[in-house]
Amino acid sequence: MTITLPPMWHSIENKLMPVNTKNPAPEHCAQMTFDEAFQLSASLMTKLESETGDNSDAKTLLNTMFSGDRLIPVIVQDATTGMNLMLAYSNIQSFYYTLKTGLAHYYSRSRDKLWMKGETSGHIQRICGIFSDCDSDTLLFVVEQTGVACHTGRSSCFFNRII
Amino acid sequence: MTITLPPMWHSIENKLMPVNTKNPAPEHCAQMTFDEAFQLSASLMTKLESETGDNSDAKTLLNTMFSGDRLIPVIVQDATTGMNLMLAYSNIQSFYYTLKTGLAHYYSRSRDKLWMKGETSGHIQRICGIFSDCDSDTLLFVVEQTGVACHTGRSSCFFNRII
Repeated sequence: MTITLPPMWHSIENKLMPVNTKNPAPEHCAQMTFDEAFQLSASLMTKLESETGDNSDAKTLLNTMFSGDRLIPVIVQDATTGMNLMLAYSNIQSFYYTLKTGLAHYYSRSRDKLWMKGETSGHIQRICGIFSDCDSDTLLFVVEQTGVACHTGRSSCFFNRII
Repeated sequence: MTITLPPMWHSIENKLMPVNTKNPAPEHCAQMTFDEAFQLSASLMTKLESETGDNSDAKTLLNTMFSGDRLIPVIVQDATTGMNLMLAYSNIQSFYYTLKTGLAHYYSRSRDKLWMKGETSGHIQRICGIFSDCDSDTLLFVVEQTGVACHTGRSSCFFNRII
């Protein structure tokens, strides 16, 4: 069974964010305040999207998404297969590092810290596209997955079919 | 660009849960205790999966998923296109009604109540498959969407591309 990639993704094909491998280490993020990460994210979003330099739209969106310094869920979907790989959480700092490096960063609720996907396993996720939903309280990362997404060694975390 | 549905979904094709339209009204769920919804869900999961009648596995999974009567996120993905449609939340009662009716039910955090997707719009979601993730704290519903998923009239809630 083959399926057609939704029109919204046609522009994603073969388009990866440039990876900044110089500073993907997440240690720095822990030191970063909400405001610092907010300002830097707004600048980067604007830079990545246009050349206008007006980042008021980016600030409005970021304000809604990370209102009250909250965590929001991130659906992670494979750009090639369309398979959902995992669900993780993002805060403003992990979002900023994702934009900065082109590699998916998340916030771990159990370890209470920021992490880069693949920092120990090597199973990194290169960002192909980032979408927010109609309420701006959920993100969708479309990624190019190196290796497998799940810590159990399976390609996707959603391997357990209930019905 | 066409993509191949992941092997885990091959069995889903043309397979929909039987819909029980007699009692999709969510009013009843509000009256249902955690324990009632838990026991009924465990029975239904076992019934839908096998004929053995042993529902201890179902109970273990439900205990982990809805531990402490919590809400968990549900990724909702279109069975035909692979497109992610929305993210919603489930508690044990909405999960039970999803199993019972074959139609997606969720728990609305803003309205603080259980709802059936499409109950007013008619844009229902028939369940093709339900997956849990490796930590059993996220669900994936693979659905057949009638009409559109988003309240804005768009097919998917993830229409806003950030980068």
